[in-house]
Amino acid sequence: MLKKFKLTDGLLYRQAKLVCENIIPYQEKILNDEVEDAAPSHAITNFKNAAYLNKHGHKAENGDFYGQVFQDSDVAKWIEAAAYSLLIKPDAELEKRIDEMCDIIAEAQEADGYLDTYITLARPTEKFKNLLEAHELYCSGHMMEAAVALYEVTGNRKLLNVMEKNADLLYRHFITDGAEGYPGHPEIELALMRLYHTTGNEKYRELAAHFINVRGVDSDFFLKEAEKRDWTVWNVNPRKTESNQSHLPVREQTDAKGHAVRAAYLYTAMADVAIETGEEALSKACFKLFDSIANRQMYITGGIGSTRHGEAFSTDYDLPSDTAYCETCASIGLAFFTLRLLKMKRQGIYADVMERAIFNTVLAGIELDGKKFFYVNPVEVIPGVSGKTAAHRRALPQRFKWHSCACCPPNAARFFASIANYAWDEQDGVLYSNIFTAGELTLSNVSVDVETSYPFGDTVKYTVKSGRAKLGIHIPQFTLNNYSITAQGKLEDGYYYVDVKEGDVITLKLDMTPRVNRCNIKVASNSGKAAITVGPIVYCAEGADNEGEVFGFTLDSSADLELKAEAPAQIGGFSEAAYDLGEVYTITATGTELVCDEPQALYFSDGYREEKRQIKLIPYFMWGNRGLNQMRVWLPIK
Amino acid sequence: MLKKFKLTDGLLYRQAKLVCENIIPYQEKILNDEVEDAAPSHAITNFKNAAYLNKHGHKAENGDFYGQVFQDSDVAKWIEAAAYSLLIKPDAELEKRIDEMCDIIAEAQEADGYLDTYITLARPTEKFKNLLEAHELYCSGHMMEAAVALYEVTGNRKLLNVMEKNADLLYRHFITDGAEGYPGHPEIELALMRLYHTTGNEKYRELAAHFINVRGVDSDFFLKEAEKRDWTVWNVNPRKTESNQSHLPVREQTDAKGHAVRAAYLYTAMADVAIETGEEALSKACFKLFDSIANRQMYITGGIGSTRHGEAFSTDYDLPSDTAYCETCASIGLAFFTLRLLKMKRQGIYADVMERAIFNTVLAGIELDGKKFFYVNPVEVIPGVSGKTAAHRRALPQRFKWHSCACCPPNAARFFASIANYAWDEQDGVLYSNIFTAGELTLSNVSVDVETSYPFGDTVKYTVKSGRAKLGIHIPQFTLNNYSITAQGKLEDGYYYVDVKEGDVITLKLDMTPRVNRCNIKVASNSGKAAITVGPIVYCAEGADNEGEVFGFTLDSSADLELKAEAPAQIGGFSEAAYDLGEVYTITATGTELVCDEPQALYFSDGYREEKRQIKLIPYFMWGNRGLNQMRVWLPIK
Repeated sequence: MLKKFKLTDGLLYRQAKLVCENIIPYQEKILNDEVEDAAPSHAITNFKNAAYLNKHGHKAENGDFYGQVFQDSDVAKWIEAAAYSLLIKPDAELEKRIDEMCDIIAEAQEADGYLDTYITLARPTEKFKNLLEAHELYCSGHMMEAAVALYEVTGNRKLLNVMEKNADLLYRHFITDGAEGYPGHPEIELALMRLYHTTGNEKYRELAAHFINVRGVDSDFFLKEAEKRDWTVWNVNPRKTESNQSHLPVREQTDAKGHAVRAAYLYTAMADVAIETGEEALSKACFKLFDSIANRQMYITGGIGSTRHGEAFSTDYDLPSDTAYCETCASIGLAFFTLRLLKMKRQGIYADVMERAIFNTVLAGIELDGKKFFYVNPVEVIPGVSGKTAAHRRALPQRFKWHSCACCPPNAARFFASIANYAWDEQDGVLYSNIFTAGELTLSNVSVDVETSYPFGDTVKYTVKSGRAKLGIHIPQFTLNNYSITAQGKLEDGYYYVDVKEGDVITLKLDMTPRVNRCNIKVASNSGKAAITVGPIVYCAEGADNEGEVFGFTLDSSADLELKAEAPAQIGGFSEAAYDLGEVYTITATGTELVCDEPQALYFSDGYREEKRQIKLIPYFMWGNRGLNQMRVWLPIK
Repeated sequence: MLKKFKLTDGLLYRQAKLVCENIIPYQEKILNDEVEDAAPSHAITNFKNAAYLNKHGHKAENGDFYGQVFQDSDVAKWIEAAAYSLLIKPDAELEKRIDEMCDIIAEAQEADGYLDTYITLARPTEKFKNLLEAHELYCSGHMMEAAVALYEVTGNRKLLNVMEKNADLLYRHFITDGAEGYPGHPEIELALMRLYHTTGNEKYRELAAHFINVRGVDSDFFLKEAEKRDWTVWNVNPRKTESNQSHLPVREQTDAKGHAVRAAYLYTAMADVAIETGEEALSKACFKLFDSIANRQMYITGGIGSTRHGEAFSTDYDLPSDTAYCETCASIGLAFFTLRLLKMKRQGIYADVMERAIFNTVLAGIELDGKKFFYVNPVEVIPGVSGKTAAHRRALPQRFKWHSCACCPPNAARFFASIANYAWDEQDGVLYSNIFTAGELTLSNVSVDVETSYPFGDTVKYTVKSGRAKLGIHIPQFTLNNYSITAQGKLEDGYYYVDVKEGDVITLKLDMTPRVNRCNIKVASNSGKAAITVGPIVYCAEGADNEGEVFGFTLDSSADLELKAEAPAQIGGFSEAAYDLGEVYTITATGTELVCDEPQALYFSDGYREEKRQIKLIPYFMWGNRGLNQMRVWLPIK
């Protein structure tokens, strides 16, 4: 829906603009190593060095590979993001620079279609010999996505040609020549499905399905592979098959396990293939895996992967707040997966989870100025402990400028630049409104204007400017028991179906009452606690709004929750870069604060009292923008 | 006080008897590899193999070393425990077997006094070349403690001769020959002080002080050592100097850091030396380190070392319940340290912390039948998560029979067998009652009978049978504001000083009212929660007493806490092996339980309610004796 829906206002539009105006230029500098004090990237130089080697038969001076084995994918994600951004903010200069980048990539490609600067420069004889660690297929996948995006937005076929050639090589290797194996990090599968949808080339679909079908059938594959090679990237243990979802054939996988990003990308591709084939066993696995995530392993913020050990799903109901991993990329992957699930079965729950992930964890991944990023998104921050102890090492309390493993920043960029694809969908003649956001929808048969300040407003107005269509409007779960809509239609599985024609104006009123959420008692760390939400937005108490300390607070059980629309300047402490957020909802809750006569005492059984106080809450995605301070989503409740 | 105070009744006596009757015979079998289904020990065989090698100049068939590099110390701790046990339960056969064991150890000693079966058998050319990892000095230290104990209890000098010879070798190596270095795991220092106190040999005191004085002065010592050798035991990183307290000269250490057992043993020895020398800089460091532990890094159970990463102190106020490490040995070490602090400055707080550690974590380390052990003592158990996830891997929800790293079981054995040393102390003409327990105190100038069922009773009665003395009776902090004593005396720093003479009967009444304890709000994981204590005993809610689930419970803020004296059979679920515990206090607290209409829902904002219910609490040390079930010390409180 990228070219059909133009966002015009609101939080997601603001984020998409931030991507265009700040993040894409910033990341372009990063990729070219032009930002001081940021971890070096070297990603563009790697492509230049590979191009030099291809041309001259020997390496350039200082022509070695540098970075993570998947450094190429940073460039791919950036190109994808930059391509989408041209729709939001046309920029001929940028388009030219992308095109030049494509030239370099084309020159970095080997004659047979092989493309991976790590292998080309550092291990030229080791192609496809370390699928477990080397990320060749992962990098190919991201570059395919970039190629598809660039072609779809601009018609520029340059990168698409490169990646078709690359895909053809992969097809020859894994299908024609029958090479064993599947990728250590899924990504190529969903990328091949995109390449198939864009080019119509059945081979790509076949190869995607092949990788899905063989995965985990021989779950010793990586072990055998490791025994055949004499090198390793990170000493990944090939016996830890759950980590990369190769412990079982995918159709037999019912519990989400292992590295959360790998999982989300794999499940997305499984759903892609299931949508094409309609195969029940594959669909069923997807639904079960979603259930495992959404009902037993997902944070209220839509974060997934609760442990830093393997950046992975831990086990059912193990959702600690302070050591939460919740990688930004994992929640982006969850949005990918739920978008596909919606295509498989149009049920509101998938859109609910999608917007939970987007409006909380994915948004929180980026500083409001677009210049710093979270890789890990904790749900509670303890200054002095978070980011410091072994258990909290990765749960940084402040965003970083760039990262030696920089998967998340460009992933978030490409995601928000293509947010229109999540807001709207089109399937079987129905136009689906999944996430409310202001904008103009223009199709051949219909055009619709949407006005709303959701999620910081309770009204969504659809105005049909021309034509006619069937709309399927997602009614989020939080408002299902309390909404009104000025159109005759039918609610089914969380979607309100209505036929519209030119001149129709549909006004939807949502229940944006603050809600006190409790958690399943099996989640030991949340017992006796509550989290406040308004619509899809999760709230947090941050020290900056509460005189520094929030860990002494307890919410009243019948808390008075006062909702207020406030601009960042009114809330206070935010830099001017955040002012274009406009008004957001904040909450002031009644509660108490534990006050002890001897504040230094570690344990005490007298000399303390609960004093009444107001607790200020802000949207979770805004946390960490005002320096190091305490943050808590789940507050004790009386 | 071991030979002067004979315990006659109560919880600690029961534990000492358990050590004599069950644990010592059981551990003897373990050390001889006679228990099925338990991890092999091989510890005695190692000594026999070393003896064979010494005698024959070549190894016996199957004569290799097996086990941890500190396997010898298991034998030493057992001998120490067994020696003490002879005072509680004389046993000529056992005494004979100990003596035979001493013969084997003597034969395992090399001609120059060297004693360490790992080095002798596995790395004979590497003596004192890997002080960081090899634990030679640690093993020597434990064997010196065993030798001292055996000599003091029985007069048997055999092992003492061996260990004096060993200590003389160490003196030559480190003092006379001036070899650099200090032990990777402190223990030898406190052992040498014991050896000095027993033998009067000043060299041992000098060597102990030397190890203390040089530690951390060259904090690169272990790094340089590692560069000189071509082998390693566990690849310990020599740069991690905090881990073994060599990051700073000991007098400059103010925060307890690193491996908790190493820390506690080192601080104990520092106090030992400071007591001898009266040196202020060293005393001051000890007081600061205690403050760092007791006021910022100690669990309410007296557990220390909150992280499994390095079995170490984490950082101030980082005291998570479910991933608590709290090694049994570390709390034993804390008892060692506080006993010395009491000698440095007679203040009740040290005895309070000492009994907190003993009555909770150390007791919990042993199954009530004396046959299973905890290495790690979590403060909350989540079945399905505890012991399962990477973060919870070491926090086992059930005790093990034996352990490949079996430091804790014999350590607990020697500790409880010598508990009289903690209950009573004698210094500068005052007899100090540190921990109330029933028994008979017999000195040359006075004899006193003590009657009490503390900690499950509120009365302590001292009857002076003969003679006269000055008593210093520890009045625990929990009762300081509410106690009565039938004697005219003077309270000073938590001790009640009174002169007694034959015929005096002093009755002390304690406040055993259940107390609701809150925690400093800096401990994020305990905010909004309370822990119940009665006297020194910490309570927990276990699933076995509460229909399986305890994580939905919230205590009433003005909870009615009903105290009941119950025998294990009345509480229910305990094996007969626990019945000799007699009556313990249990608590029934009023509270609520979160009940949700959709118990499968992960998050919910309606369809739930708080139902009134009774919450049964048992002493923490009794947890985990009735199969796998939930356990929680800190409960949410309204």
